[in-house]
Amino acid sequence: MKEIEAVIGESRYTIEIGNRLLLDSQRLKEKISGSGKCAVVLSNYLYDLHWEYLIEVLGGYTNKELFLMQDSEENKNYIYAENFLQGFAVKGLARDSLVWSIGGGVVGDFAGYCASLYMRGINIVQCPTTLLAMVDAGIGGKVAVNLQSGKNLVGSFHQPILVVSDTVFLSTLPDREIKCGLAEIIKHSLIGDAASMDILLKHNLESVKDESVLSELVYHSAKFKVSVVAADEKEEGLRAILNFGHTVGHAVESFMAYKDISHGEAVAAGILAESRISKEAGLLSADGLELVVDLLKRYDLFDNSINCGSDGVIEHMKFDKKNKENSVRFVLLKAPGEALYNQTVPNDIINRAVEETLA
Amino acid sequence: MKEIEAVIGESRYTIEIGNRLLLDSQRLKEKISGSGKCAVVLSNYLYDLHWEYLIEVLGGYTNKELFLMQDSEENKNYIYAENFLQGFAVKGLARDSLVWSIGGGVVGDFAGYCASLYMRGINIVQCPTTLLAMVDAGIGGKVAVNLQSGKNLVGSFHQPILVVSDTVFLSTLPDREIKCGLAEIIKHSLIGDAASMDILLKHNLESVKDESVLSELVYHSAKFKVSVVAADEKEEGLRAILNFGHTVGHAVESFMAYKDISHGEAVAAGILAESRISKEAGLLSADGLELVVDLLKRYDLFDNSINCGSDGVIEHMKFDKKNKENSVRFVLLKAPGEALYNQTVPNDIINRAVEETLA
Repeated sequence: MKEIEAVIGESRYTIEIGNRLLLDSQRLKEKISGSGKCAVVLSNYLYDLHWEYLIEVLGGYTNKELFLMQDSEENKNYIYAENFLQGFAVKGLARDSLVWSIGGGVVGDFAGYCASLYMRGINIVQCPTTLLAMVDAGIGGKVAVNLQSGKNLVGSFHQPILVVSDTVFLSTLPDREIKCGLAEIIKHSLIGDAASMDILLKHNLESVKDESVLSELVYHSAKFKVSVVAADEKEEGLRAILNFGHTVGHAVESFMAYKDISHGEAVAAGILAESRISKEAGLLSADGLELVVDLLKRYDLFDNSINCGSDGVIEHMKFDKKNKENSVRFVLLKAPGEALYNQTVPNDIINRAVEETLA
Repeated sequence: MKEIEAVIGESRYTIEIGNRLLLDSQRLKEKISGSGKCAVVLSNYLYDLHWEYLIEVLGGYTNKELFLMQDSEENKNYIYAENFLQGFAVKGLARDSLVWSIGGGVVGDFAGYCASLYMRGINIVQCPTTLLAMVDAGIGGKVAVNLQSGKNLVGSFHQPILVVSDTVFLSTLPDREIKCGLAEIIKHSLIGDAASMDILLKHNLESVKDESVLSELVYHSAKFKVSVVAADEKEEGLRAILNFGHTVGHAVESFMAYKDISHGEAVAAGILAESRISKEAGLLSADGLELVVDLLKRYDLFDNSINCGSDGVIEHMKFDKKNKENSVRFVLLKAPGEALYNQTVPNDIINRAVEETLA
C-alpha cells in the first residue's frame, strides 16, 4: 500500500493506494472510528461488475445503509440529489454519520455534494474506482452537480476524511476509461509532474495497463494534484493550472452536448490545441510540442477524429466560468512541465490552433 | 449608524445598523466594489409593503437582476431553490457576481443557501429586514433550506461580506413579528448579553418599539451573537448555548407542524420550560426563574396558551439533530446571564417542566 498525506486548508487526511484495500475492514474501521451510521453511495454499474467483491467488503460493516446511484452524468443533477438527501434523513443519518462513496468521478462528485450539504456537512470517505477519479475527481475536494444550464454549476469544497483507491477495480476498466485517466495523467505531467512524465515516456497503452504501473502512476499523479490543491484550495491562483487542456476540452464537450465523446478524448484534444496555442504564442518550443504529440500518440489520444467544427467550439469557450471580463483565459505551456495560468491570446492564434486540432 | 466588526473563521465583515441605510448607494457600492453582476433576492411580501422605498434603493444600482422570492417557510425548500440557481445561470451570474438578500430570516437563509452553492460559492450581502433576522438568522453564516423530512436539513456555513440592518423596515412589523425578535433578544440576554438585559428590564412591549430602543437592542444582541459565533463558527462547542430555549421550542413547532404558532412563541415557551428545568436540576435559583418569568411577561411572551399536549413534544425532542447517543441535550441556566451547554437531565424533571409550561 502506498500512502499520500494531504493537508488541504483545515483538513488533513490520507490517500491510500493499493490492491484489495477495501477488504481490510479492521484497518478502515479504525480510521473512521467515532463515526456513527454510514451511508454507502455505490455506483450501480460498479456493483454489477464487482458484486461478489463488494458484498464481501460491505459485509465487514454494520450500521450501514446502502444507496445505489444510477451512475451517469445525466443523473449527477440537483434534483436527483434530493432523493439521496431525503433518504439520508429517512434512514436517520445524523451529524456524526458518514457518507462512503464507491464509484467513479460521477459518484464521487454526487456523493460528495450530498455529504457537503446534509446537516451543513457530514464526513465522507471517497473510494474512487476509475483511473480518472483516482488521479483527478477524487482528489481535491471539489464536489458539484449539474443544472440544466451547465455542468457542475452547483456545489462546494468538501474535503474527505480518507481516500481509498482500491486498484482492484481498474482491472475491469475498458480502454476508453483507461484513456480518460491517462489524459489527465498526461496533463499533470505537462504542467509539472515529472515523476509521471518519466513513467509515461517508458510505456504505451498496452504496457501501462500492468497493475503495478497504473498503481505507480496513480500515486505520483494524485500526489502532484494534492500538492497543487494544498497550495490553493479555493482556486484563487495556482490551482488554475489544473485547467490546462480544459478550456478547449470543456468547450468541445459542451458543443457536442457531451455525446459521442469521452472526457478524456475532449481533454486530449484540448491538450493538443492549447499546446499549439502555447507554441504559436511564442512560449513552447517546437521540440516541446513534439513531446506533447508523442505522449498523446503513445496512449492513442492523438487524432481521435472529433467531428465538430471549430467555430462552434470557439463560441462555447466564451461561456467558460473561469473567464473574466469577457476574455477567454488559458493555461499555457512554457515548456513540458512548466505552465502559466491566466493567459490571454490573440483570437487568430486561438482560431488557427483549434481549427488545426479539430479539422 | 452603528457598526459591528465581525471576524468569523477566515471572514471579516461589517454589520451596519441604522435608519434608511440602504439609500446611501454610494457608500454601499464602495463596500462591494469589485463585484460584477448582482442578483437581488427580495421578499415579495416586503416589496408589497415598501415598494416605493425599495424602488428608490434599487434605482441606485446598475447591472442587477431582480429575483422575487415568494416569502414563506414552505418555499424555503430544496426544490424551490433550483429555480433561483437556474435563474442565476440564465442571467449570466459568474464567480465574481454578488447575491444581495433583502428580507427576513426565510429570505436570508434561502438566498444565502443559493449563494453558498452557485459556482461553489459566490459573495452575499445580507440585509435582514425583521427584528428576528437582524439579531439572529442574519448573523453567523448558517444557511439552509428544508426537506420534506425536516427543517434546515440541507445547507452550509457561508458568511456574508456585509450585513446592512436597515431599521426603516421595523416600522411595519406586526406585534407578533416584533415578539419573535424579542424572544431571541431575551434568550441572548439570559445566556450572557448583559447590555440587552439592561435595556429589556427598562421597557415593555409598547415602549420597546421606539426605533432608537430597537436599534440599541439590535446592536447589542447582534454583537453578542457575533461574539459567540466568532468563538465557535461550526458549532463544535460554545455556539451550542444559542440553542437555549430551542430544544423544547423546536419540538413544540415540530409537533404542531409549524402551524398556529410563531417561532417566537415556541422559543418563549422553550425558554420558560428550560429555565424551569434549570431550576429543578438545582442550577437556577427561584429568583433567577422569577426574572425569566418577568422578562417574558413584560413582552407578552408568557402564557401564550399553546394548545399542545406535552407528551408529543417530549417525543419530538428525541429527534433533535443536536442529540448524541439518544439522549436529549439541553442548554441550562446557572443564573440569568450564565449558560451551560451539553447538559443531560433526568426524564422526570423534563416531563414536569414541559407539562407545567404547555398545560
